[in-house]
Formats: sequence, C-alpha cells, structure tokens
Amino acid sequence: MLAVMPDPLQLSPDARAVMIDAAGPGNASEDAERIAPRLTDWRGRTLGTAALLLRPATVAQVQAIVRAAAAHRVAIVPQGGMTGLVGGALPTPGRAAILLSTERLSRIRSVDPAGLTLVAEAGVTLHAVHEAAAHVARRFPLSLAARGSATVGGLVSTNAGGTQVLRHGVMRARVLGLEAVLPDGSLLQQLGPLAKDNTGLDIKQLMIGAEGTLGIVTAAALALAPIPTERIVAWAALASPAAALALLADLRTRVGDQIESFELIPGEGAALVAQHMPQLREPLPGHPWAVLLELGGTALMSGLEAALLAHATDAVIASNNSQADALWAIREAIPEMERRDGPAVKHDIALPVATVPAFMTATETALAVAVPGARVFAFGHMGDGNLHYNVRAPVGAGPDWLATNASAVSHLVHDRVAALGGSISAEHGIGAFKMDELARLGDPAKLAAMRAIKHALDPLDIMNPGKLAFEAA
Amino acid sequence: MLAVMPDPLQLSPDARAVMIDAAGPGNASEDAERIAPRLTDWRGRTLGTAALLLRPATVAQVQAIVRAAAAHRVAIVPQGGMTGLVGGALPTPGRAAILLSTERLSRIRSVDPAGLTLVAEAGVTLHAVHEAAAHVARRFPLSLAARGSATVGGLVSTNAGGTQVLRHGVMRARVLGLEAVLPDGSLLQQLGPLAKDNTGLDIKQLMIGAEGTLGIVTAAALALAPIPTERIVAWAALASPAAALALLADLRTRVGDQIESFELIPGEGAALVAQHMPQLREPLPGHPWAVLLELGGTALMSGLEAALLAHATDAVIASNNSQADALWAIREAIPEMERRDGPAVKHDIALPVATVPAFMTATETALAVAVPGARVFAFGHMGDGNLHYNVRAPVGAGPDWLATNASAVSHLVHDRVAALGGSISAEHGIGAFKMDELARLGDPAKLAAMRAIKHALDPLDIMNPGKLAFEAA
Repeated sequence: MLAVMPDPLQLSPDARAVMIDAAGPGNASEDAERIAPRLTDWRGRTLGTAALLLRPATVAQVQAIVRAAAAHRVAIVPQGGMTGLVGGALPTPGRAAILLSTERLSRIRSVDPAGLTLVAEAGVTLHAVHEAAAHVARRFPLSLAARGSATVGGLVSTNAGGTQVLRHGVMRARVLGLEAVLPDGSLLQQLGPLAKDNTGLDIKQLMIGAEGTLGIVTAAALALAPIPTERIVAWAALASPAAALALLADLRTRVGDQIESFELIPGEGAALVAQHMPQLREPLPGHPWAVLLELGGTALMSGLEAALLAHATDAVIASNNSQADALWAIREAIPEMERRDGPAVKHDIALPVATVPAFMTATETALAVAVPGARVFAFGHMGDGNLHYNVRAPVGAGPDWLATNASAVSHLVHDRVAALGGSISAEHGIGAFKMDELARLGDPAKLAAMRAIKHALDPLDIMNPGKLAFEAA
Repeated sequence: MLAVMPDPLQLSPDARAVMIDAAGPGNASEDAERIAPRLTDWRGRTLGTAALLLRPATVAQVQAIVRAAAAHRVAIVPQGGMTGLVGGALPTPGRAAILLSTERLSRIRSVDPAGLTLVAEAGVTLHAVHEAAAHVARRFPLSLAARGSATVGGLVSTNAGGTQVLRHGVMRARVLGLEAVLPDGSLLQQLGPLAKDNTGLDIKQLMIGAEGTLGIVTAAALALAPIPTERIVAWAALASPAAALALLADLRTRVGDQIESFELIPGEGAALVAQHMPQLREPLPGHPWAVLLELGGTALMSGLEAALLAHATDAVIASNNSQADALWAIREAIPEMERRDGPAVKHDIALPVATVPAFMTATETALAVAVPGARVFAFGHMGDGNLHYNVRAPVGAGPDWLATNASAVSHLVHDRVAALGGSISAEHGIGAFKMDELARLGDPAKLAAMRAIKHALDPLDIMNPGKLAFEAA
C-alpha cells in the first residue's frame, strides 16, 4: 500500500465531517461562490483560502465548532462585518482553516434604559445597536462610517474607535461585559453588565482588541449614554493645527467634558469633497485648516462662541440637525474621496495630543527631503491624538510610486511616531499587514508577554493564526 | 558533617545579600519595629511575616529587586498606602517573602492640561494627584475616603472605584498608560498616554486589578477631567430603593451624563452619624431612605428640581460648597460610624442596577428566616449597582455571633448576588480573604484562564503568592 501524504491546507475528511456536524443543520457551506467574497477585503486584498464557511446560530454551536477545531488542529477565522482594514478577518496561508461567521448570532438580548446597558450578540450590526438604544430614548455613543456592516463582535475584537471617543471612549470603555468561547471550547461568561467588578484578572479585557486570536466573542454588554438635550455642531476655520490645539484646550476649560467630537480637517480635504460631490457645499473655502466639532449638553453656546472668537479665524454654527448632518457628511466622505483621487501610503497613528502640531511640522519637513514631491494628507480625530496620516504620491507620479516608496515612507512616519511614544495603529489594529512594523517598533517586553499569554490560552494555535504578534506555528 | 535543612520561611544569606544590594544604598531595612506595622492591615489582621523591607527609589532598583527575587525564588509583596480591605498587601504564610514599598517612587512626572493627562509614579498619593490636577485647573475625578494614604500603584493594582464612577468610571477607565516591572524583571513601557492604541493584546489591562500578582506597577498615566462650571449637591429623602432607582432613571433622561454621584443612604445611617458626631447635623430626619447626589455641568438645576418633585418626598439643595462638603462629610463618615456601633458581616457587592431594589427586598426576607434578628445595613454607590451590604448582629447578641454566623450569612448574600449575575467584590478585590468565595462562585472558565495566564507570566510564582485565585505553590 502507498501512504498518502495529507495536504496540510485541506481538512481531512474526518475533520470536515466533525466541523460540519458541530455547526448545526444548515449552518455549513462549501459553496466556492459564497466563500470567495469572504477571502477578500474591501480593498481587494487576499491572503489564504478556506474550504468551509460555518454560520452558527447559537453559542453552543460555536463551542462545538471550537472543540472540533481543537481536536483536529483546524484554524478558525472569525468574521463579522468584514469592514476591517488590516486583514484581521482573512485566513492566512499555510494552514487548513474554516471561516466562522457570526451573522446568525443576531439577537439583542436585553436593553436597560435606567442602567444604561444593552446586551447584543456578536453578529448584531452597530446600526442595529443604535436603533435599539434610540427606541428607549438612549444612545450608544460609538459610531463609525461602516456602522451598517460592522458588528458587535468585530467592534469588540478590534477595540473600535470612531468619532465619539473624545467624550465616550473607545469600545473598551463601552464594553461592560463579555461572553466568549475560549480556545478549549469553554465559555467565558462575564456579561454582567456591571459597572464595577474586581474579582480577579479581567480576562475579558484580553479579548477586547485580540482580533480573534484568543477566542470567539459571542455577545457583549454595552454601555449606553443619555441623549443630550442640546446638540451643537460647528465648523471652525483655523490657521494651523496649533490653533486647533489651543481651541481644544480652551473648549475643555469652558465647556468641560461636553465635547463630543473634535475633528481636524485640512482645507483641501473639504475642497476635494466639494469637487467630487457638489451637493456637499464647502462651508468656508480658502482656509488651510478646519475643525468640525460637536458639543452635547446644555447652555454651551456662550462658551463655544467665546472659544471660537479667541482662536478661530471664522466659523459657522449649525442651526438645526440637517445642517449638522450636512457638515458631518463631509467628514465621513473624506476617506473615500481621497481614495478616488489617487494612491497614498496610509497610516493610522496616535500621539500624545500636545505633540500633534510639532509632529506634523517636523514629519512633513522630513518627508520633503526623503520623498520629494510627496504630499501629506492628515486628518481625523485630533481630540484623541489620532490622525489618519496619509502620504500621497507626487503630482504626475507613475503607477509604481506606491510600491517603490511605501516601505520607506512608513518607516519614516512610524519611527517619528514611536519616538514620541505614539502608536502605529490607533484604530485599525495589527492584523496580518502591520505585523512587521509592530515587530520592528513594539515594546519588546509587551510583545514577549503577549506571546506568553497566547501560548498559555491557545497552545494549539487554533485561533486565527498568523495575526497580531503571533507568527503561525 | 551534618547537612543543615534551610528554613523555607527565611531568606538564605545569599538571597538576603543580593536583595539588599539590588534595593540600593539605604533602601533596605531589617528593623522589626519598622516592619511590624506593615504586617497588619488597618482592621488589625495579619497573615504571614517578612524579614526585609525594601523601598526602591528608581525603576531600575525595582527591576534589580525582581531579578534577584526570581533568581532566589523569593516572593515579593508590593505595598502602597496599605488601605486595602482584603489583605492584598499582606505577606502570606509558608514562603520567604520581602516587602516592596513604593513610597519612594513619589514623583509626578508630567501634567498636560490640554491633553488631560498626568503621569505619576506608583507611590504618589491620590491626594497629591488631586492637588497637581487642581494646580492646572483640572481634576482627577476618582476619589475615596483613604485618598490621603492610597497610592497610584495601589489604586491601579486594585482597580479602585470610589464616589465618582457613575460619570467617570473606575480606575481602569482613568488609566491611559502604565509602566510596570514584569516577573522576569523586564519593564513594560506603555505609559503613552494615548487615548487610542490598538497594537495587540492590551497587557496593561492585566496589571490593572491584578493585586500585584503579575508584576510591580511603577507609574501610571492618568486621565484628568475638566472642572464643571456648576456644581450641585443634593440630598433627597425617599420612600424606598425603588424610588431611588426611578429618580436615577429620570435624572439620566433630564440631565444626561452629568450625574457625578448617586449615593443611597438608609435613614438610620444618617441618624447614626448624627448620634456619634453631633456637628454633622442630619439634613432630613425621619425618612427610611436618602440619596446624596452630585451633578456637574451647566444649567442643570431645572432638571434636578423636576426629577426631585416627581420622585422625592422632600429635598434640600446645597447652596454653596461648604453646605455641599457638609453633606459629603456625612456620607464619608458612615463606614467608620457603623464600625463603632457594633459588629457586622460585610459585603462589597455589585449588581445590575435595575435589580438592586428586588435584590434588597428578597435578601432581607431570606436573612430574617436564616438569621433571626440580624439587621441589614446596605449603602453606597447605587448608581453603579455597588452596595456595601452589611449584616449586623441582632440587638443584644453575644460577642461570638459574628464568628458563628459570618459564613452562613455571606453564603446566603453571595449566592443571591451570583444568581443575579452580580459580583461578590465590586471594589475591594479578592486578596487572601475572599479566595474561598471566589473559588466557590467564580466562573470556572474565567478562573482557568486566569491561572493559565498567571503560569505563563510568572512561572516561578514570585509575585505576591497566595492571592486572588492563585493558591501558593
């Protein structure tokens, strides 16, 4: 008899049967046409393959899948809304993997308007969470452009940010409790929701931002917030990022913690949007910088006016919700409009807020020397110290500019970020695409501790291998 | 020659010399009179002994101490302000241990009023943090009665709560960055301070609330807050906890997230204080319940008045800061006054806020059957669902009542808390004294994961052994 070597990229017939059985009737698919879109991210990138898509509808089914995967050394790649930007939800090459979609874990289990909590399963979209909160006259104060697709499980697993972090924090601050299936198939039941719980190491914190490498989030208890009685949205034209920082500091003194958002926008960003989408009129053309800001609370107008008078060169204040929405629509359209306008080396950096103006000046000067003609396009959540710091190709550059220069540009930007104690990934995570930069610049002690914990909780490396700081075995 | 068996509770001469050398000149003491007070908590309890007190003044000295302890298998017990309630800072029996006091790590490294951050070393007291924030017209919105002694390292390691959690969160929510020495002597450098950072597993979250079992916190970057322009402190008399819950829900709708504190107080609590401290006049005698609440922001008075009118049976509103301070002084005096009044089985529980009234009714009924005559004394942070649920001896009970009934009472209370998905330790932690109850009621999956992580990061079990969920080896 001839011994047949098993293909390491294929499930064995045994493993295949057990995994399909574990998923539950009708919850498994081997249809290549259904699987193909789940192997590609929205920027069109792929990494590896998967022959099996499982869509469990219950927590018990998720547990059965994980146990089967452990028994057969099969890798599990959890997938939510597939709106991530770093390949965290794509299977990686070199290992037989299955896709685990959370789309059928779609129940909102409870809403408590007095306790300000909502318990949602992993597959519930952010939009659905917003609707459920509004139904009881509350809000879930975390939002991002992909809210129609992004799911609770993905938001937790990537510790999502968005536009309301300044006042309300990142996802970690909004997660009061978590339910998750660990790598051995056991269920972590820490849904609470409790405002305080000091009964040991807070294991659920490890699941937040783990990008699925430690287990499968099945549900989360989320912190809602009251709806402010007054909402003010304003657009401020500014001479420089330093003026924006001064405006922010002044606002903090005058209106306290009632600043919902503070978004820095380059004048050309607004111009670009107006150019491609004429229905979105540029509020104050001809200024180098603007800030879009939102306040929520009561009697804040006088403080806002004084701060604008002291630091802005001009300002408009939205007088109703549709004017406010129109201002916000401009902000949300920027990434897509920038993409349409041409290639750029993109970065998602966070810095101590006070260092942002100096970082921007110095980095732009250094880039002008290293990559002549490259154009900096930085925007985003300045209130959080988080910039989308994109470096666009010189006008008229050839199609190979990006491939030729991306690595040098990113090293330059990230080196400066690291030198200031910043983060090379504020919102987007590490996934598969930023592992090299994390290995290059990450705190060695932190990376070593992360690997030790990974080994302790997932010794078989069945959970989303090849992501974060964990080279696939 | 006779072989001499080493005493496992004594440091070997080699270990002693190396540890003293690592601490740095003048930073080690073997004086029994200096060590003795550090072996006893403020309730007068002791556990084990230690022959050596080390007081490092630099992070490098802390690292040297940890490396020496690893080399010689010596246990390290970190100590801050010694204000903990569960023995977390006391050495346990059965293992040679040294005390590591953070008192000389006492620098405030930086304050940034625009970025709302302050970096303090582990030995800085909470009071000193408050003063440094006030110096730049900001505040650190976490406070507790022990603020003159409690240190940053202890607040982080116990994930402290206090009276401002409702609006500003527990310590975890105020810790933006952390510096810590890990069990191998390496330095975790995640001081940031960054509002967003998604570069992998957030290892610093493991150090928050770990009670020193994973390493030594040497510094923390703390989130400051603006000072509200308006401050309202009120005392509301109420018919029942259900009325308090209704008041809270109504306030949340009317004044949004500007509720700083919401403290439930039994009428007899205020009476008890007034009895022992006549200078603290009882604001509204003769009511079964009261809530002390504080709002911060602007133009909140009308919302407060409407909510009080709808749900309170009577109310006074402080018209200046000294009236407000006088109301707060009553709240802060309650634990000490209760202690003076007689023995009680004490619990520090957290519940989903909406379940608090039903829990209190049902648990009091069950206690009346199980422990006739026992008197429930529940108070604290109702806005967070966190009650200090104390069960006092019947009037005229003998001195052995507490020892005879404590276990049965705690099991009854904790079983009901667990059944509601609550926490058996909201603020105080597990330490050495609550390990049995955690082992009895804790989520088995969570406990197993905690132990795996502990083993991965501290294989020699040198960090504060015998605490939390980790039996000493």
